[in-house]
Amino acid sequence: MADRERPTLAGLGEFAVIEELVARRTQTRLVEVGPGDDAAVVLAPDGRTVVSTDMLVEGRHFRLDWSTPHDVGRKAIAQNAADVEAMGATPTAYVVGFGAPGDTPADAVTALSDGMWAEAGRTGAGIVGGDLVAAPQWVVSVTVLGDLAGRAPVLLSGARVGDVVAVIGDLGTSAAGYALWHGEIRGFDELHRRHLVPEVPYGSGRLAADGGATAMTDVSDGLVADLGHVAAASGVTVELSTAALLADRDVVAAAAEAAGADPWDWVLGGGEDHALVATFPAAPPAGWRRIGSVVDGPARVLVDGAQWRGSAGWQSY
Amino acid sequence: MADRERPTLAGLGEFAVIEELVARRTQTRLVEVGPGDDAAVVLAPDGRTVVSTDMLVEGRHFRLDWSTPHDVGRKAIAQNAADVEAMGATPTAYVVGFGAPGDTPADAVTALSDGMWAEAGRTGAGIVGGDLVAAPQWVVSVTVLGDLAGRAPVLLSGARVGDVVAVIGDLGTSAAGYALWHGEIRGFDELHRRHLVPEVPYGSGRLAADGGATAMTDVSDGLVADLGHVAAASGVTVELSTAALLADRDVVAAAAEAAGADPWDWVLGGGEDHALVATFPAAPPAGWRRIGSVVDGPARVLVDGAQWRGSAGWQSY
Repeated sequence: MADRERPTLAGLGEFAVIEELVARRTQTRLVEVGPGDDAAVVLAPDGRTVVSTDMLVEGRHFRLDWSTPHDVGRKAIAQNAADVEAMGATPTAYVVGFGAPGDTPADAVTALSDGMWAEAGRTGAGIVGGDLVAAPQWVVSVTVLGDLAGRAPVLLSGARVGDVVAVIGDLGTSAAGYALWHGEIRGFDELHRRHLVPEVPYGSGRLAADGGATAMTDVSDGLVADLGHVAAASGVTVELSTAALLADRDVVAAAAEAAGADPWDWVLGGGEDHALVATFPAAPPAGWRRIGSVVDGPARVLVDGAQWRGSAGWQSY
Repeated sequence: MADRERPTLAGLGEFAVIEELVARRTQTRLVEVGPGDDAAVVLAPDGRTVVSTDMLVEGRHFRLDWSTPHDVGRKAIAQNAADVEAMGATPTAYVVGFGAPGDTPADAVTALSDGMWAEAGRTGAGIVGGDLVAAPQWVVSVTVLGDLAGRAPVLLSGARVGDVVAVIGDLGTSAAGYALWHGEIRGFDELHRRHLVPEVPYGSGRLAADGGATAMTDVSDGLVADLGHVAAASGVTVELSTAALLADRDVVAAAAEAAGADPWDWVLGGGEDHALVATFPAAPPAGWRRIGSVVDGPARVLVDGAQWRGSAGWQSY
């Protein structure tokens, strides 16, 4: 039975919890029908909808002894929003599937929802629907919708020989934070934070598309791994220069020394930062850092002219 | 390590499994960008997107000793499609989040995907993206997009005094099947099947909207419970007549006798059939069965003039 001080999901029941989560929210002007009906209806102004989905599983993608529920909510929204940004689009709405044990305190779910709404608000969108179910551990499944506002989507396959490669956002900070958490190394508060909640450069994807980006992706698996997807889809070689990434290395260098790690493994191989990396036929927009170029050759990524021998990037298995 | 005869998710790795799942599929003409990029792009012809999501957890929403992976895939798509139907819309695309242990045979995931594509094909849509992650048990999270083709969405809140209540599709067959599976009662193959894969009356939602439906929902929690949502949202009393539901009772009567159950508990209280129930100001379209009427009064559902005392319908906790 539920502690009266801290009611649980099982104590309140699905419908009461959902009612409480939905009642406090204001939907955006893009939402014609919000939560509470069989489905939501969201405006798709340019006649297309961008859509992407990600699933996060407790113990695998987050730990509740490291992350607060609010952090988990922010991260789940952020990594979905980054996928829409990487198409050159803007998020318009999110739907959320959430599974958790019956003894989960309802206020933990409220905090998760608060985190989702906080991060969604930074992207200009809200949560229009969801599903709350019993599960042996927390599972958070977010689907994001987005609007291209008439732009052509920026694909993995558009990189052309002669393009500049540029990045905006953090590289290696999430991997650094993971190593610090895992090694129980104190200090480096900002890097600890970054592992729990990435700092996605919202709005930069749209500006990159307007600025002529030929290919784009977000760094979810690792810079070299994700540029490997661009290289494969575009049939080009991507050359990176570590000289252009020294500032990124410097951000994590002290933490790497404390953790006994190579900072380049984090900068080049660390995922989950959700920086945006794109190719441009000319100079990138303001704020983007040039880190390499697209050259003729087999589909691969070279670092300072050589195959990179560090971590191969994240896979789920 | 993977058995070479039956490779596992962990043995093949996330990317190889996804590549195999995606390679064999043909996308519909509504899909501008399909799987393999950061996000998909789906046409939204009328400038709006209908969206709904459902999460299914192994052991809670399905059992792999009852359902084949193909069944699970069909059910996951069907229950999402029913939510879009219930708005008077038509599915345009699905995205799928799937979590499973690393020792899951890859061919089980292929069968799940085959089931999803088979059911999605019945709705005229395909799967445009997804996420494959490691999880302690199977978790299937489906999000469906839909198109209203210029129609107003049919909401829970539109029922008006004097409307006819009508239903199309099965009532109580999923609950009957559950009782048969649970009681290990043989025979009744069709009812056993219905619990694993509901038979959604695809296309009927759109036709109901065109036929003037004022309110609509799908029967996911139970007929009385779901009409309770309509009654609450519309501020009306819904009166049901069991005389109009005798044919539904007859379908499950023999199974109810075998299981020692009351068939009315299944017809009035059983969820997951994903029949459509709607209110109409005049005669419902062909194929719909009149089962009651909307009258003035407090928000409630009466069965033969009295409060129904059976099962309150499904909740997740």
